[in-house]
Formats: sequence, C-alpha cells, structure tokens
Amino acid sequence: MAELRATDQPAPDLEVLKKAAGVRAAALVESGMRVGLGTGSTAKYAIEEIGRRLGAGELSGVVGVATSEASDALARAVGIPVEPLDPRPLDLAIDGADEITPGLDLIKGLGGALLREKLTEVQARRLVIIADHTKLVTRLGEKAPLPVEIARFGFLSTIERLRALGLGGRLRQPGAQPYLTDNGNYIFDAQLPEQFDPAELGDRIKGTLGVVETGLFLGMAERAFVAAPDGVRKLTPQR
Amino acid sequence: MAELRATDQPAPDLEVLKKAAGVRAAALVESGMRVGLGTGSTAKYAIEEIGRRLGAGELSGVVGVATSEASDALARAVGIPVEPLDPRPLDLAIDGADEITPGLDLIKGLGGALLREKLTEVQARRLVIIADHTKLVTRLGEKAPLPVEIARFGFLSTIERLRALGLGGRLRQPGAQPYLTDNGNYIFDAQLPEQFDPAELGDRIKGTLGVVETGLFLGMAERAFVAAPDGVRKLTPQR
Repeated sequence: MAELRATDQPAPDLEVLKKAAGVRAAALVESGMRVGLGTGSTAKYAIEEIGRRLGAGELSGVVGVATSEASDALARAVGIPVEPLDPRPLDLAIDGADEITPGLDLIKGLGGALLREKLTEVQARRLVIIADHTKLVTRLGEKAPLPVEIARFGFLSTIERLRALGLGGRLRQPGAQPYLTDNGNYIFDAQLPEQFDPAELGDRIKGTLGVVETGLFLGMAERAFVAAPDGVRKLTPQR
Repeated sequence: MAELRATDQPAPDLEVLKKAAGVRAAALVESGMRVGLGTGSTAKYAIEEIGRRLGAGELSGVVGVATSEASDALARAVGIPVEPLDPRPLDLAIDGADEITPGLDLIKGLGGALLREKLTEVQARRLVIIADHTKLVTRLGEKAPLPVEIARFGFLSTIERLRALGLGGRLRQPGAQPYLTDNGNYIFDAQLPEQFDPAELGDRIKGTLGVVETGLFLGMAERAFVAAPDGVRKLTPQR
C-alpha cells in the first residue's frame, strides 16, 4: 500500500520527471481552448506551464476548469482565467494518475480530488495523463490503493459494506481527523484483490450505499506522457 | 354548480391521519431499543410520541439515531437521547414515505433526507413506514417524482446524464438557490417513465457519475401503518 503521509517529500529527480511530463502536455494547449486542470503534484507543473505560455504571449483566450480548490487557486495565481464546470465539452484535460496500465486504465484520487476530476474529465474530448515512470503498472492495484469517496454520515457502516465486497484498506486519516474532500466527504483507500475485473468491481463499489465515486478511470485517457530518466514517452492505449 | 348533499362530510385533516399513523408506530418502541428516527411531516409525530412515552415513564433507555439535523433537533427537544449512526444494527426505524406500493416499495426523499434515511434504515431490523392514505400507489412514480441526490460540482452535466437515462424532472430549487441537503448536495426530482423496472433503473441511476443516492427504497420496509378516514391499516408486503 502506498504511503499517504502529507509530509512525504518525493525525491528531487522525480520532480524533474514530473515537470518534463507536465511541460510536454501543456504544449498541446492551443489558443481559445477550454482546458480541464488536474490536481496533484504532477498536474501542478502543467498548470504552471500553461500560465507561463499565456504570460509569454504564446497562447491567448485559454480558459481553465479546475478539478479542485487547490488547482483553482494555482491556476488563478499563474494567470489562467478559471470558469466553473458547465455541460459544454472541454477541448482537453491534463491530469496526473496514481497508476497507469498499458491500456491507460487509471487509478486516481491519491490527491483527494477524484470526484471533481472524473466529473470534469469525462467531458474532455481528450484526457492526457502525465506521470513519472513509477506510476506504470501491469494491473490496477499493483502499487496503489483505490481511493473511494464516501459520505461522512454512517461512514463506518459504508466501510463494512466495502469490506464485504472483498476490499481491504482503511479510511484516509492523515492526522487527528479523517481527510475531507472538497465535497465534504471522506475517502476510503481500498486495497484491491489480486484478481478482479475492473469494470465489474467498479460498478459494484459505486453501487454500494454510501459510496459517492471511485478512483477508477477506465477507458477515459487518450494518451499519457510518462517521464523516465531517458526521456518522456508518449503512450496510447494498448488493448 | 356545487350541490350540497346531507352525506357530505369535511375531509379529516391529513395532519390528524399522519399523527394517527405516527402514534401507532411509536407503540412498537420498547424500552432499551435503538430506534432510527425518520424525517418529515409524518415522522415528526412518531418522534413526538416516543418522547411523550419516555417522559410519561412508559419507556426507558431508548436511544434515537436521527436521519436529519431537523429530526436530531426535534428528538432532543422532546427528550430522546440521540447518538450518531454506527455499524450496530438498529432494533427499529420509523419513517414516512412519499409513495408506497402494495409490495411496500417506496419513494422517499421529498423531505430532502434520503441519503441519511437510507444509510440509517438499511441497518434496522424492522423498517416501519407511516403515512396517510394519499401516499398509496399502484406503481412507483405515479404521483411523486423520484428524488436523486447529486454532487453540487458539475450538477448540470449530471442532470444531462440523468436525462439521457430517460428521466424528466428538475433540480429542486424552492427559492433563489437550489435546495441543499444535510450532506451539501443538490436534489434532482426525477420524473419516472411510465414503465420501468425499479431495481434496474435504480442501479442505473446510482451508477451515474455525479449521483450520490436515489430515493428508491426497495424491499426494505417490513410493514406500513397507513391512516385513512376509517382508521389506521397495517400493511405488509404483497409480492
């Protein structure tokens, strides 16, 4: 299970890789686009680069739709106009991921924004994932837990229902209080079983009373830029 | 032209009927029970009667688990000790409903508390429904819309996804702002189609991105006390 402590400091070289992936994705942004802005330590580099390109006059008329209050604040700080999500499609969305399979199925939500990310990115004509190479897996659940957003009310009973589906794991609680999402919910970091069908298990989890959404992003990503020490690779879904 | 006939009787006040049903259900409470306390204009009569029985010394050691902040406040005001929901089963839950079929399938949530009601009442050994006779229907959706609790973020897109399932309806908005649930979500009051399979449609709605829970309560009620001008009838599920 991945460590979830807020005090974790990634190794500096990973930061260089994350930035390389973020810059590569930000190069896809064109003037006039409406762009979904992801959340987390990799997405921030894309947001900063979009802001830099706007400030340098390389781009104009770009509007961001933020997937978290943190990304909203960062986008405004670097000069990207931000609008709320409405039903119009987004031209592009750029976000990180916690796990990426060869089919570009994803686990997301370690940053705590999975619901808003999914609500935003499902509307994007293209979802581009950025990550360092440590996020590549052969099957979902290999390294990371699956974040599941659950209602606060009766959360202990909801966790019991999730355990009854065969999920291990624990409530996300970095300090004295459980972690609270931007939507006022809790997160259960579920340990996935060795063998499972992602779509079927995803439906069963989402169908569970008390569950708001899961961090499974299946069939949504159009490509991924994955940065390794030898460069940034572009991946497309291998089915 | 109205014709005055000797047989015309003023309709009994619906409040009188609701209270009769609530008092009947409250009689099922025994000392030491943990009781789920419903929400709404009928459930309040049961809460008041349980409080009266406690105050009169007819009951002792009863603990309530409230399904809304309003019911929590009412219960405390009438002298019922209230505890938060935990994973222990409840001996009994008493609540109103917006529609009741002969099989005791229900639509609930016009009072806005459907998520907490469902989370609480699924843990009750017995769910007893109280209502006046106007809530009886032959099929769900006959008179009432189906309340669907949805995340605020991106709610317009979520409503579009619900419409794509064949649901009419509208966001609940009693004034200038949309109605906000105790969980910080919105409610879409869905118009159900003429013909549908409740369990299947319920799964599809709950499985929709942005949906938190629906007001379909299928196979949960153990009995209903339905008050009509000629008395209170006890109903059990007819399958």
